[in-house]
Amino acid sequence: MVSSLRLPTLTSLFSPSFTRRSAVYMRRRIHLRPPLAAGFSAQSAASSPTETEDRVDNKKSGRVQDRGNTDGIITPRSQDFNAWYLDIIANAELADYGPVRGTMVIRPYGYAIWEAIQDYLNVKFKETGHSNMYFPQFIPYSFIEKEASHVEGFSPELALVTVGGGKELEEKLVVRPTSETIVNHMFTQWIHSYRDLPLMINQWANVTRWEMRTKPFVRTLEFLWQEGHTAHATPAEAENEALQMIDVYTKFAYEQAAIPVIAGRKSKVETFAGADKTYTIEAMMGDRKALQAGTSHNLGQNFSRAFGTQFTDENGQRQHVWQTSWAISTRFVGGIIMTHGDDTGLMLPPRIAPIQVVIVPIWKKVDEKAGVLDAAKSVAEALKTAGLKVKLDDTDQRTPGWKFNFWEMKGVPLRIEIGPRDVSSGSVVISRRDVPGKQGKVFGISMEPSILEAYVKDRLDEIQSSLLQKAISFRDSNIVDVSSYEELKEAISLGKWARGPWCASDADELRVKEETGATIRCFPFEQPRGTKTCLMTGNPAEEVAIFAKSY
Amino acid sequence: MVSSLRLPTLTSLFSPSFTRRSAVYMRRRIHLRPPLAAGFSAQSAASSPTETEDRVDNKKSGRVQDRGNTDGIITPRSQDFNAWYLDIIANAELADYGPVRGTMVIRPYGYAIWEAIQDYLNVKFKETGHSNMYFPQFIPYSFIEKEASHVEGFSPELALVTVGGGKELEEKLVVRPTSETIVNHMFTQWIHSYRDLPLMINQWANVTRWEMRTKPFVRTLEFLWQEGHTAHATPAEAENEALQMIDVYTKFAYEQAAIPVIAGRKSKVETFAGADKTYTIEAMMGDRKALQAGTSHNLGQNFSRAFGTQFTDENGQRQHVWQTSWAISTRFVGGIIMTHGDDTGLMLPPRIAPIQVVIVPIWKKVDEKAGVLDAAKSVAEALKTAGLKVKLDDTDQRTPGWKFNFWEMKGVPLRIEIGPRDVSSGSVVISRRDVPGKQGKVFGISMEPSILEAYVKDRLDEIQSSLLQKAISFRDSNIVDVSSYEELKEAISLGKWARGPWCASDADELRVKEETGATIRCFPFEQPRGTKTCLMTGNPAEEVAIFAKSY
Repeated sequence: MVSSLRLPTLTSLFSPSFTRRSAVYMRRRIHLRPPLAAGFSAQSAASSPTETEDRVDNKKSGRVQDRGNTDGIITPRSQDFNAWYLDIIANAELADYGPVRGTMVIRPYGYAIWEAIQDYLNVKFKETGHSNMYFPQFIPYSFIEKEASHVEGFSPELALVTVGGGKELEEKLVVRPTSETIVNHMFTQWIHSYRDLPLMINQWANVTRWEMRTKPFVRTLEFLWQEGHTAHATPAEAENEALQMIDVYTKFAYEQAAIPVIAGRKSKVETFAGADKTYTIEAMMGDRKALQAGTSHNLGQNFSRAFGTQFTDENGQRQHVWQTSWAISTRFVGGIIMTHGDDTGLMLPPRIAPIQVVIVPIWKKVDEKAGVLDAAKSVAEALKTAGLKVKLDDTDQRTPGWKFNFWEMKGVPLRIEIGPRDVSSGSVVISRRDVPGKQGKVFGISMEPSILEAYVKDRLDEIQSSLLQKAISFRDSNIVDVSSYEELKEAISLGKWARGPWCASDADELRVKEETGATIRCFPFEQPRGTKTCLMTGNPAEEVAIFAKSY
Repeated sequence: MVSSLRLPTLTSLFSPSFTRRSAVYMRRRIHLRPPLAAGFSAQSAASSPTETEDRVDNKKSGRVQDRGNTDGIITPRSQDFNAWYLDIIANAELADYGPVRGTMVIRPYGYAIWEAIQDYLNVKFKETGHSNMYFPQFIPYSFIEKEASHVEGFSPELALVTVGGGKELEEKLVVRPTSETIVNHMFTQWIHSYRDLPLMINQWANVTRWEMRTKPFVRTLEFLWQEGHTAHATPAEAENEALQMIDVYTKFAYEQAAIPVIAGRKSKVETFAGADKTYTIEAMMGDRKALQAGTSHNLGQNFSRAFGTQFTDENGQRQHVWQTSWAISTRFVGGIIMTHGDDTGLMLPPRIAPIQVVIVPIWKKVDEKAGVLDAAKSVAEALKTAGLKVKLDDTDQRTPGWKFNFWEMKGVPLRIEIGPRDVSSGSVVISRRDVPGKQGKVFGISMEPSILEAYVKDRLDEIQSSLLQKAISFRDSNIVDVSSYEELKEAISLGKWARGPWCASDADELRVKEETGATIRCFPFEQPRGTKTCLMTGNPAEEVAIFAKSY
């Protein structure tokens, strides 16, 4: 999460275009044709479609005939990936710009995705022996200076409180960019003996980094994250913990977010400021840039030596503790958007979707309405009872076609349509978000709760694994094995990831970055067998590294 | 939560004594006899007792004969309430002091209480139609100045960020003390028509107020809270919402925290800076001081006028929205401690206790150990499966007596003891935290899961309502009905709350405060019938007010 932030990202899409897009979007809102524009531009915090002054013509109804068209509002992904990303965030009401440059307001639908991430990880952290707690966000400036590489890494991007209660402060305070320093200050008071170890905690918190180039979710001045901090009696325990937590993240990415991250170790250049080793999960976005989606650091004794965090071991000797820290942030929400989204909008993996199933009742004549709504309500209730996250969109201010588009744009995995004929036949129509058009549509699924529930759960499971498989294929078809710097350069220039043996110097690594814009994303845990020759130096290499442009 | 913070609190216990106590506590740690001192002073973040260098003599065993003595470590409540409070926070490892004056580290056991509060309220907020989201914590200084009484109320206690990314900022940033201003800035962009209303959101966040006199949980420089913010089309809707949310808080206080708060309306003097009306829940602490435990504000159009938050109504007219905001903070944890705790330590209502049942296995001979531990484990499993929060304290580093004391001090509602004789008879011994000694102890409860589970759940329910009843009796025996200022003064001087008819001026209210140290806590919703005469002016009064000294 951290090390790459230390370095200017040559290839990312910068604030200027971000701001420009926003302006374009604002202009567009005015010119779009009323029914669609109204729904998409309505900036309500509620997650259901809201109305504007323009009353929608509700005569057009029936199934799918009146599909709106999202082309006018969401830039095609292939045309301008960054514009597409920002359009989705605006239209799906995931986030908005805060009044201070680079800050972001996380809107209810975006926050609900973050809550799904929290709910899963919070359980895993507790299962692996960690307790939640909370550290103050104001850190004395002197703390940051105690660990040499830490201050070097973080000082350029600190926010400083210099005035409190109307008075200039004697010591300026850092608004936490990360909490290793204050954590160690406290650990030093709590840890006395080996019996106090391991000490394993986590906090959910906001952090601040004065980033120059911001992008919603991916890099913001303030963001939300969890940061785990542990202290151990031996280096082996710390190493195991760092690895265990990157595994928790990897599993989360694959199984919940359907993002086939590549887990591995960072190069020295890219290691967290203050860590001995940084483990990372790297995700390939739809534009084939890498997103560092989570990190776990083996801090060794760097902070414990700086802060004097010692314990008395079983032989009565005083020793410095061995530590780890690990984090996942709201950046992950950006990763989900950029992995699965398409030209229609967001596409959410069922396991982290705030709404898994949307139910759209369809009627033409007034006397059909009650029957259709009753059926839709019972179906909604049955699925809710089965533990599914269901939204019944029963407003009569919008046509079914409008609703289809709206909820597709919001990335809801499954849609259930219920019309008068369905009511008569006791069945429903089910459409998959990930399979467009008729192919993703199945008619005549029984409304009988146990049958419907089983069917819906199966489809959600299918969508979950289908999204993962699609992302795996995309990833694998965009990683090129290279054996020379020429090949690496070619792969990168084609927008791909390059994987090749590497044992060259830090200077060589920086040269690659300067010349290609790509960095070592990681030395992946999964390594090919056999002898390898460094692509840069021609010397024997122990490992392959993955190079890519990144966010 | 807010208005009383605006005024110097004459009667509260200030930082000097707070710091002094801490020093006393530090000194004490050194002199206490090893086994007990070791356990209490070990500052591990784990919630189970931890070891220090001093190996505990584990020969002393058997049931309760070797009870440790907490007198040396927890100041008796009657002797020095503030010292008692701080001793509990330190010994039960609820919180610690952060490195920056007035900041607090919330330790796992204290944080788990906060999580229990969050879990309950989060569900209630969603049930009542609110969505969670997140606003940036940095607010342009100019925002704070837009609402006249708001800036007056908050400017003395702001923390300001003046440097970001190494540069002096053009506009200094306020670290949010509360979010009405930034919320309105965003609402203005999201609300267009009456169809966008009501807009009902909540955020869980940290807030910063540069308090001069701090006390863990009760008043800290940074604290955690939730803040709800809503916008409505009519004043009636806003008023209903403000009342609905104070009801949610009241119900939470009674049913979960077993705190019989008095709900009512604040006087004009005590109303939130920027609100038309503030509703409050006021809790009587063990020292009979009032704690403002939650507030709900009807903001009228004060912020919408300041920020131009308008909507087009059904007749096409532009109108300013009507708003509310409401909050409960980590202060509530302090309220729980000070309502239920006793000389033995913390006493937690079962519904918010991080551990509801602690199981202490007891054995004397080595050959008894396995059988006892097996039985203890099955009992623990059975109760966990039944949805209870169970801790099995099976360390052999501590005597059962030490464990009894430790978990009583931590406020765990029920203790299950299992010894060799219990294993033979297939039964356990159960002790209630709220009924000391033999009276609270029942022998021979069957280990059979369904019987035990039912018994334990019944006892927990009993404890829950017994704590509430005790707090109600205490509260009611300490509220005095007064009909003159003399009577009011006498009641306050006896440390009680005074309730009497009031229709006097703000100046009179401030005079009462100056002369007695008491403020109007609220005009309670529950009002006596009949005609009333103002205790101060002798004029007809419509309502009684409650006066008390407060935190």
